[in-house]
Amino acid sequence: MVSGPNDAQLRERAKKVIPNGMYGHQSTRLLPANFPQWFSRAEGAYLWDVDGNRYLDLMCGYGTNLFGYRDERVDEAVATQLAVADNMTGPSPLMVDLAEQFVSMVSHAEWAMFCKNGTDATTMAVTVARAETKRRHVIVAEYAYHGSAPWCTPIPAGVVPEQRAHISSCVYNDVDSLDEAVAAAGDDLAAVVVAPFKHDAFQDQALPDPDYARRARELCDVSGAMLIVDDVRAGLRVSKDCSWESLGVRPDMSTWGKTIGNGHPISALLGSESCRRGAGDIYATGSYWFSAGPMAAALETLRLVRETDYLEHTVALGKQLRIGLDDAAGRYGFSLHQSGPVQMPQIFFQGDDDFRLGFAWAEAMSAERVYVHPWHNMFFCDAMTSEDIDFALAAADRAFGVVGGTLDSIEPHPVVKTLVGGT
Amino acid sequence: MVSGPNDAQLRERAKKVIPNGMYGHQSTRLLPANFPQWFSRAEGAYLWDVDGNRYLDLMCGYGTNLFGYRDERVDEAVATQLAVADNMTGPSPLMVDLAEQFVSMVSHAEWAMFCKNGTDATTMAVTVARAETKRRHVIVAEYAYHGSAPWCTPIPAGVVPEQRAHISSCVYNDVDSLDEAVAAAGDDLAAVVVAPFKHDAFQDQALPDPDYARRARELCDVSGAMLIVDDVRAGLRVSKDCSWESLGVRPDMSTWGKTIGNGHPISALLGSESCRRGAGDIYATGSYWFSAGPMAAALETLRLVRETDYLEHTVALGKQLRIGLDDAAGRYGFSLHQSGPVQMPQIFFQGDDDFRLGFAWAEAMSAERVYVHPWHNMFFCDAMTSEDIDFALAAADRAFGVVGGTLDSIEPHPVVKTLVGGT
Repeated sequence: MVSGPNDAQLRERAKKVIPNGMYGHQSTRLLPANFPQWFSRAEGAYLWDVDGNRYLDLMCGYGTNLFGYRDERVDEAVATQLAVADNMTGPSPLMVDLAEQFVSMVSHAEWAMFCKNGTDATTMAVTVARAETKRRHVIVAEYAYHGSAPWCTPIPAGVVPEQRAHISSCVYNDVDSLDEAVAAAGDDLAAVVVAPFKHDAFQDQALPDPDYARRARELCDVSGAMLIVDDVRAGLRVSKDCSWESLGVRPDMSTWGKTIGNGHPISALLGSESCRRGAGDIYATGSYWFSAGPMAAALETLRLVRETDYLEHTVALGKQLRIGLDDAAGRYGFSLHQSGPVQMPQIFFQGDDDFRLGFAWAEAMSAERVYVHPWHNMFFCDAMTSEDIDFALAAADRAFGVVGGTLDSIEPHPVVKTLVGGT
Repeated sequence: MVSGPNDAQLRERAKKVIPNGMYGHQSTRLLPANFPQWFSRAEGAYLWDVDGNRYLDLMCGYGTNLFGYRDERVDEAVATQLAVADNMTGPSPLMVDLAEQFVSMVSHAEWAMFCKNGTDATTMAVTVARAETKRRHVIVAEYAYHGSAPWCTPIPAGVVPEQRAHISSCVYNDVDSLDEAVAAAGDDLAAVVVAPFKHDAFQDQALPDPDYARRARELCDVSGAMLIVDDVRAGLRVSKDCSWESLGVRPDMSTWGKTIGNGHPISALLGSESCRRGAGDIYATGSYWFSAGPMAAALETLRLVRETDYLEHTVALGKQLRIGLDDAAGRYGFSLHQSGPVQMPQIFFQGDDDFRLGFAWAEAMSAERVYVHPWHNMFFCDAMTSEDIDFALAAADRAFGVVGGTLDSIEPHPVVKTLVGGT
């Protein structure tokens, strides 16, 4: 059972010319069988697969869609810029405008560097920290995703162990574990890299314990290490500032991506004075990093961030979905564990250790034309309406019924079965 | 002396919010003082700085501009695609179309992976080689540029030495040196990474010695290592196939970028059957890697590559410039060393070890509104005409006169002085 004949045909063609037919985070290899792999159209909160089926998309481009696919305001800013200049031998003045705007919105930030991938930003952050401190050691949390570069990829095939030297891990929100990791690093600690909240794949999410956040800052202050908040996934979705600002904790650097161009390709590293020298010492560049089009997108996206109530709106939608799903699940005897901020939900079935119920439900939701993810946190966009959530909840009600009616025959996904326990 | 008041004002603003005021390959810190840092417009072969000066641009976006800035055919394909879909929760069918097209044009290739930065592609290539061979060692040529990631950056500030473990170098075109490096790697050789021709910064370029190229292939065949041609900079500029195809040497992988989207952000790794399994084993991804807009740009760019005479045209322009510059230099008693393919020229003054003449000439050319680079190879685009080259040559004649008239007072660039001898 696949999504449709056009999707199936494209999969066959892709198998020949793309390794495994598709790679990376958008591969459906770890998704239910009826999930479409190929999409032909996007608008607002909706996606169309290549067989013409429309989906309410609760993945929002894995977070890149903040205001709606093809938001007219952002795309018009891009089109206006592309009519004059995009990629050139030097940057456009938009780079200065954007750095000024972004720095003015993020309390800890005094400088900005722009790049393309979230991984570019996190790799640069670690490199800046090492250049600034002249030390080597970096602490991350277990299972945390900070990108697909050799130093941080969750699947290190083809990576030699030395590329991950001087990196150790602690348990998110566990102060003792952080203390131990810092003590073990001794006088060689360059950086502590944290997610703004725990948003690991295949795991319950967790909001940051303020004591943990403050302790991370304190340990960095005492040791002279750099605190880095990796806001690539959550940035602008939980706050209009750095995500830890509301805890009263300011990092030395924060990394950004996904939302900041509303889908147009741009990511960023923001930093404070504490590491401006290190940032100036490293070499980091890319062929398209200084293109003006995505910077126009980011300027307009940041304007919308400042001037609209998208954040309150997506939080309200998230609450509506969370409450409605709990109700619907209960009607069929299921109990959900929904974790993380309501606007970035991770939705699991209680006790569903091998994710078989979650996969079955996501598959049934896909048949109802709502795209939900069985093991990755989801996203909302400002273009979604309360009626869209009603549509999702009606679909969810039927999907819980489908799962409940086929409980005995549900098998776990063969690959996921082997992955459970760590990503 | 700077380019103009608007440029100067932007530099002041940038200093506050961007480390060093600008970073990466587009920073003018290592360029003559009158070079503009900021550009507001681009069209065809021309750039306009923020003070309204128009330049014939012989850097072509450091190689991204192949058919002309804002080529209507490419940009219309992009606009048409953006009106339907760009970045989504899954890829568009254009990804399959593009993989098929690209693989059909590059003789060694059986599969394709798309990414954003040239560095993404080279890092993936090395990772695939290690995953495929289950070995660790990688041989590169001295001074060769393969990107700005920790394993290959030319300025490793903030990089721990372990990130560059199991990498050794040989001398480009020196068979004995390659033999020695391969012998030293023993049974741990995963890959030999080569530039299609020697195009290192600050150094004369050199075309590949066919014996060297064949020996590289032979050594990889004997040892089971992967041969990787890094065509990010030269791809589609010296051949419509992989750049070593004309030597009869087929790599296992080739890396691409810059030209393939005519400035729109896309890069690629192409591979043969020999490493399809390794390619399927690695994890590599990025938020924007599967966006449809840049794939539409690449499809149209590849169509233009197949259906136009851009290659013959840029070679003819390159010859015209090379011959004309030698003549003009001679009229003022200068002798040039112009190296590399005519359409990707490196232009130095004979005996100008500290580049003082080259910098003075580039500065004088900039005043004449022709953008030439004193230490990096240059590029042509299909939108350039023979009349444009006449314009450049007339400017060059006057610029040689300026340099000749101020010979006694020319000082070397302070930073370059310290760099000479290696990048």
